[in-house]
Amino acid sequence: MKKLINAPERVLDDALAGIAAAHPDLSVDVEGRVITRAGGAGQGKVALVSGGGSGHEPLHGGFVGTGMLDAACPGEVFTSPVPDQMLTAAKAVDSGAGVLFVVKNYTGDRLNFRMAAELAEDEGITVESVTVDDDVAVQDSTGTAGRRGTGATVFVEKIAGALAEQGGDLPSVAAMANRVNAATRSFAVALSACTTPEAGRPGFELGADEIEIGVGIHGEPGRRRETIRSARDTVAVCLDAILADQPLAAGEETIVMVNGLGATPLLELYVVFNEVVAALAAQNVTIARNLVGNYVTSLDMAGVSITVCRADAEMLALWDAPVNTPALRWGS
Amino acid sequence: MKKLINAPERVLDDALAGIAAAHPDLSVDVEGRVITRAGGAGQGKVALVSGGGSGHEPLHGGFVGTGMLDAACPGEVFTSPVPDQMLTAAKAVDSGAGVLFVVKNYTGDRLNFRMAAELAEDEGITVESVTVDDDVAVQDSTGTAGRRGTGATVFVEKIAGALAEQGGDLPSVAAMANRVNAATRSFAVALSACTTPEAGRPGFELGADEIEIGVGIHGEPGRRRETIRSARDTVAVCLDAILADQPLAAGEETIVMVNGLGATPLLELYVVFNEVVAALAAQNVTIARNLVGNYVTSLDMAGVSITVCRADAEMLALWDAPVNTPALRWGS
Repeated sequence: MKKLINAPERVLDDALAGIAAAHPDLSVDVEGRVITRAGGAGQGKVALVSGGGSGHEPLHGGFVGTGMLDAACPGEVFTSPVPDQMLTAAKAVDSGAGVLFVVKNYTGDRLNFRMAAELAEDEGITVESVTVDDDVAVQDSTGTAGRRGTGATVFVEKIAGALAEQGGDLPSVAAMANRVNAATRSFAVALSACTTPEAGRPGFELGADEIEIGVGIHGEPGRRRETIRSARDTVAVCLDAILADQPLAAGEETIVMVNGLGATPLLELYVVFNEVVAALAAQNVTIARNLVGNYVTSLDMAGVSITVCRADAEMLALWDAPVNTPALRWGS
Repeated sequence: MKKLINAPERVLDDALAGIAAAHPDLSVDVEGRVITRAGGAGQGKVALVSGGGSGHEPLHGGFVGTGMLDAACPGEVFTSPVPDQMLTAAKAVDSGAGVLFVVKNYTGDRLNFRMAAELAEDEGITVESVTVDDDVAVQDSTGTAGRRGTGATVFVEKIAGALAEQGGDLPSVAAMANRVNAATRSFAVALSACTTPEAGRPGFELGADEIEIGVGIHGEPGRRRETIRSARDTVAVCLDAILADQPLAAGEETIVMVNGLGATPLLELYVVFNEVVAALAAQNVTIARNLVGNYVTSLDMAGVSITVCRADAEMLALWDAPVNTPALRWGS
C-alpha cells in the first residue's frame, strides 16, 4: 500500500487537524470528531447536521458553511460515526429551531443517527431526519437495506441548507430535503477499486479492461462487470438505469452532477459531462445547473457517478442561493 | 488502458465541449482551442493569457474569470498549444492595455508563446511574458532548460490577475507576476505514474513500495526513488528541498498549496497539509493563506506537490481580492 499517511489508525485525526488548519471558517473538534461553522449557529435557524464514514471527501466536512451544513460528523474511513458525535453536533448547532439530520442510507449510519436523534430529543432538541437513497444500481447492497445514498446528498445539503438559511422552519426544511431526495437518482461505474488505509489492498479486483457497472461508493458490487467501452456508451448505461427508474419528460429541467470517485482526471469528467449533455438534449431535457468534479469520492477509486435531479423552480432558486463552504462557494 | 473517453484523438475536443456546457461564464472556442471569459475583455484592463498542455486540469481553463485569467489556450495532452491559439486569445482579450503571457518553463511552451508574442506585436498588441519556473527538484529536465514550471502558476495567475483587475498597467502586472514566481518554490513526489490517452500505458514504472522524489507534472524523472515513508518524512523531504533553495526566516508569511496530482484522496492531502503546518510552525513560519486540493494535476498520477510562496503584504492583499473562476472562487 502506498498512501500519504503516517499510520492507518491516525489518518482521521491527522486529516481533521489539517482541515482545521486549512479552513479558518470551520471549527474542528478533532478529538470529538465534529466540524461546525466557526461563527457558531445562526440564531433561530434550523440546523443541518450530516455525517458518515470518511473517505468520501469533500463530503461532508467540505460542505459545512453558510447556506449548507451547520455540522458534519466524520466517522473512521468507510465507517459510520457514533451517536455521541451527532449528539454533540446537534447540541452545538441547535438554536431552538430544531435540527435536520441528513443520513445516507447505510444500516450503520441509520442506526447511529436514529440513536443520536433519540438522545437529542431527550435533551429537548427537536430532530427530523432525511434518509438519502438515490443510487438506483441495486435494491439492497452490502450493509444496506434499500438503495444506497450517494450523490443526492450534495443536492439535499445544498438545497435544504439554502432553505434553512432563508428561515424555513424544520418541517419545511425536512420536506424540501425529502423532495430533493425523491427527485434525484444516481448511478456509478468503477474503473478500479479503492484501497482503505486499514485494509491496505484493493477492495475488489477488476481485470485489465473491466469496469464495475453500478458500483457503490465503498466499492460495493454493482450489477455486473463489463469490458470498458466508450464514454458515450458508459454514459448511456448510467442514464438508462437512472431514467428507467425516474423517467424525464421533454422540457423538464435538471441539476446534473458528474462526480469523480477520486482518481479520475477532470479532463475525463468533462468528456463524460459532454456525453450526458448530448444524451439528455436528445430527449429535450435541460441541464439547468451542473457540478463537474470530485464531490462524493471513494478514496482512490477511478470511476464516475452521474446524479440527475428533476428540479422545479423552487429547487433551482435554492440551488442558486449563496453558499460559502470549502468545497462549494458562490453568490455573495 | 481504462479511461472515460471516446477515443484518444477526441479527448480534448470532447472535454472542451464539456467545459463549454458546464460553465456559462466561459466562452469556449472548441475548434480554435481558446477559452475566454463569456463577458468579453474588461475595457482598459491588462489581459492575462496562459496555456499549456492539457492534463493538468483545472489549470488553465479552470482559472479563467474575474480576478484571474482572461484566456487560456489548451494544447493536446502534455503538448504545448500552438502560437495561433495564443495569438487568437491575445486578439480576443486585448483592450489596448496589453497582454501578459503566463508561460510555464517548458521548451515547447516557451518557443510557441514567444512566436505568438511576436505575431501579436506585429498586429499592434503589446505583450509581456512571465516564465514560471518554481520546481526545485532538478535544474534541467526532459524538455526543459532550467527549472520546470508547476504550482507557482496558480499563484502567479491569481495575484497578477488581481492586480490587473484593479487597474495595474502592463509593466506593474508583469513585475508582480515575476515577483510571485521569484518568491515561490515547489517540489513533488509521485506514488504512481500517469497514463496519457495516446500512450495508453504508464509513463514509467514504480515498484510496489517505491515513490519518485521530485517528479515532474508530466512524469519527468525526479532526484531519486525511495521506499515510501510516513507523510511526515515525505513532507520533510519536500520542504527540505524547497527551503534549501529559498530559506525562510522566522516570522515570515507564506501562501502554501498542497496539490494533488490527480489520484490522491483529499483525505491524504489534508494529512500532508497538517505535516506542512507543523514543519513550518517549528521554524516560526506562518501559513497566512492556503490551498489544499487538485489544482495542477498530472492526469491520474497519485502523489502530491507542495508549493510555498514567501508572500509580502501586497501579495496577500491581492490573493484576498475577489476571484470568480470555475476552480477558484471567493470574495464578492
